[in-house]
Amino acid sequence: MSNVRKLSAEFLGTFLLVFIGTSAVVIANGKVLTIALAFGLAITISAYAFGGISGGHFNPAVTTAMLINKRISGKDAVGYIIAQIFGCIVGSAFVALFVNALGQSTSQLGQTDFTVIEPWMAVVVETLVTFLFVLVILNVTSVQHGNDQFAGLVIGISLALLIVVALNLTGGSLNPARSIGPALFARGNALSDLWVYILAPELGGALAAIASRFLGSEE
Amino acid sequence: MSNVRKLSAEFLGTFLLVFIGTSAVVIANGKVLTIALAFGLAITISAYAFGGISGGHFNPAVTTAMLINKRISGKDAVGYIIAQIFGCIVGSAFVALFVNALGQSTSQLGQTDFTVIEPWMAVVVETLVTFLFVLVILNVTSVQHGNDQFAGLVIGISLALLIVVALNLTGGSLNPARSIGPALFARGNALSDLWVYILAPELGGALAAIASRFLGSEE
Amino acid sequence: MSNVRKLSAEFLGTFLLVFIGTSAVVIANGKVLTIALAFGLAITISAYAFGGISGGHFNPAVTTAMLINKRISGKDAVGYIIAQIFGCIVGSAFVALFVNALGQSTSQLGQTDFTVIEPWMAVVVETLVTFLFVLVILNVTSVQHGNDQFAGLVIGISLALLIVVALNLTGGSLNPARSIGPALFARGNALSDLWVYILAPELGGALAAIASRFLGSEE
Amino acid sequence: MSNVRKLSAEFLGTFLLVFIGTSAVVIANGKVLTIALAFGLAITISAYAFGGISGGHFNPAVTTAMLINKRISGKDAVGYIIAQIFGCIVGSAFVALFVNALGQSTSQLGQTDFTVIEPWMAVVVETLVTFLFVLVILNVTSVQHGNDQFAGLVIGISLALLIVVALNLTGGSLNPARSIGPALFARGNALSDLWVYILAPELGGALAAIASRFLGSEE
Repeated sequence: MSNVRKLSAEFLGTFLLVFIGTSAVVIANGKVLTIALAFGLAITISAYAFGGISGGHFNPAVTTAMLINKRISGKDAVGYIIAQIFGCIVGSAFVALFVNALGQSTSQLGQTDFTVIEPWMAVVVETLVTFLFVLVILNVTSVQHGNDQFAGLVIGISLALLIVVALNLTGGSLNPARSIGPALFARGNALSDLWVYILAPELGGALAAIASRFLGSEE
Repeated sequence: MSNVRKLSAEFLGTFLLVFIGTSAVVIANGKVLTIALAFGLAITISAYAFGGISGGHFNPAVTTAMLINKRISGKDAVGYIIAQIFGCIVGSAFVALFVNALGQSTSQLGQTDFTVIEPWMAVVVETLVTFLFVLVILNVTSVQHGNDQFAGLVIGISLALLIVVALNLTGGSLNPARSIGPALFARGNALSDLWVYILAPELGGALAAIASRFLGSEE
Repeated sequence: MSNVRKLSAEFLGTFLLVFIGTSAVVIANGKVLTIALAFGLAITISAYAFGGISGGHFNPAVTTAMLINKRISGKDAVGYIIAQIFGCIVGSAFVALFVNALGQSTSQLGQTDFTVIEPWMAVVVETLVTFLFVLVILNVTSVQHGNDQFAGLVIGISLALLIVVALNLTGGSLNPARSIGPALFARGNALSDLWVYILAPELGGALAAIASRFLGSEE
Repeated sequence: MSNVRKLSAEFLGTFLLVFIGTSAVVIANGKVLTIALAFGLAITISAYAFGGISGGHFNPAVTTAMLINKRISGKDAVGYIIAQIFGCIVGSAFVALFVNALGQSTSQLGQTDFTVIEPWMAVVVETLVTFLFVLVILNVTSVQHGNDQFAGLVIGISLALLIVVALNLTGGSLNPARSIGPALFARGNALSDLWVYILAPELGGALAAIASRFLGSEE
């Protein structure tokens, strides 16, 4: 394995250490663990329970990256993305039903939007965290230097950590389907900001597909 | 493996992502992690320590699903369910003893009941979360596409996540034995609502047994 | 494997579910997770890092149980227990040094004592939780039906969960060495109550050694 | 394996139990879990995703220890340390960008410094916790008695636990690169105290390399 790849790996690991760790201190203020783990570990259990059937994408940005690196056919990719969006809509419908039963307003359904930061900054945030998330996925599932057994756990923890970083900035989507579901029911800013949560994760996923080839993870 | 199964897997995974993650935001309000993990990880340690002896059901709804899918005999199933209920009663008796020693009222023993939502909604909630829980169990323990090593960890995390969803709605039982134990000592609503926590998890488990066959997890 | 063992396994698993889960609700009030995980996961990292050298007891009650079930010689057991007590004393000395450097009183060093409950109840609590802890250890490390790879993780999580149960009752020791260390520096009640934290965990460990044979874990 | 090594292992494990557990009670006061886990699990995901490429050091103190024990060449070590420092600077630059976008002051970037304790005490704390951290790394990655599959998880949890101990004393660096990144942007005390966070972790790592040989982990 080339020396540049080794140095890139060391760069990426220490980048993640400071990026995630210090963000937990100054952006998340040491909170949001339950919410981040709820999303992250939901992917972990889905990966171990259903990943053996479909490969366990659960995210159009992941499917796009897999398509770019030819790990899935174009026809399958379209079906996967439709199933993912459908899954998120049904999931959000049940949450709306339960929120309503509790007498709470269904204007708050865990939707993603941004109020403090500018739209271009929201694009930067979601692109960067999705890039890192999909890069981890492509490497930990790599035949070359991944870890088949731990992949589901690592992917879920990665999502949780990157949501800790992004939650107070953009809500921490990293997944177009995850944002489409609640936006359809909560409407408002979640709907008008939706383009960011489709564009940025798809861009991040595509960039990760290219970076992953450079790291030799697709050989 | 058929294409419909793949698309169902992608649907289920993204459904769980939004269902669990956004519920943690709007239903649990980012709390209840300790309680949810206490129940969930108790199943994890039991699965690794005692699952090698009995198979590790620890829940009449799981035993019912295993019976429907012919992974256990009817005679064994009856014995298992009696042992499970007995285990929960003895566990709750010790908690009552300790709560009393602390000078607290034994009317609060972690029992399950519902006050805000309607009974039919409680049935919907417990049926849905138990359906998802048992579906994860049947798939992660599937010879076809499961993961024998990580099963105990995945099952425990699944229980924790689904309790995060259900705790503020129904108390998050997912297990008739778990509700019977505390109800016998705490009485009150826990006893009069008990039918929900027997009926709904059993129904959810039975539906999961059928859905699991559709996903090809019993072949 | 006999049917009685299967039913005992189902009893134990559901017992732990209700005992741990509902205790987290009514005894721990949903708190103490960080403290419990700090102790529990310290055993996990020690088990994976140093367990390959010594077997990873780190607790006189565990060494006693291993001695009863002939997994360690009497001569080794004595050495192990002395090393364990010495480790805890040095660990507590560093904590006292750091607490003093922060300007805090060294009368609070994380020692174990009880104020609300009676001494006999403290003996019951520590005996029961140590019995369960050592029973999990003996079963998850069993050649017959354990899990070598996950044992260190399961043992650490078990300690964390049982500390969640016991923290507000007795401080949650489950380990004579762990109580001796801080008691020597903090003195007061921790020193006068120390007999409970030596007697009860040793008794719980011995009972677990016998119960484990009944479950067929030593064959 | 010699008896002294076994007793050292038992000493180390119980030392960690009391050192970490009781520190969580009296130094961390049961808080800081999210922050500690954010740093720790960032190393875990990096280890599984990128460790297969570079070996997964992500820390100049680890690279120094690996160099002393001849697990890496001197030329590679220099490149690794430069890549690590560069990774942390870029990571911290992004955090500064996001903190600025939220309208917060960039004088708080999760940098490490100490205000209550004396400089020599800060050196003692960082040397001790890094010594323990690198000792765990060298042992859990040991061919002789380590665990290849769980190493990434154990290393991340170890970092989290030792940050729980050190956070309120020194900020819990254990890694020169992790301190250099934020110090360059936040300046102030973080810059004037930086020598502690370079000297102490390097010293701790070097001592761990020697101790690890004594434990037979390099054979």
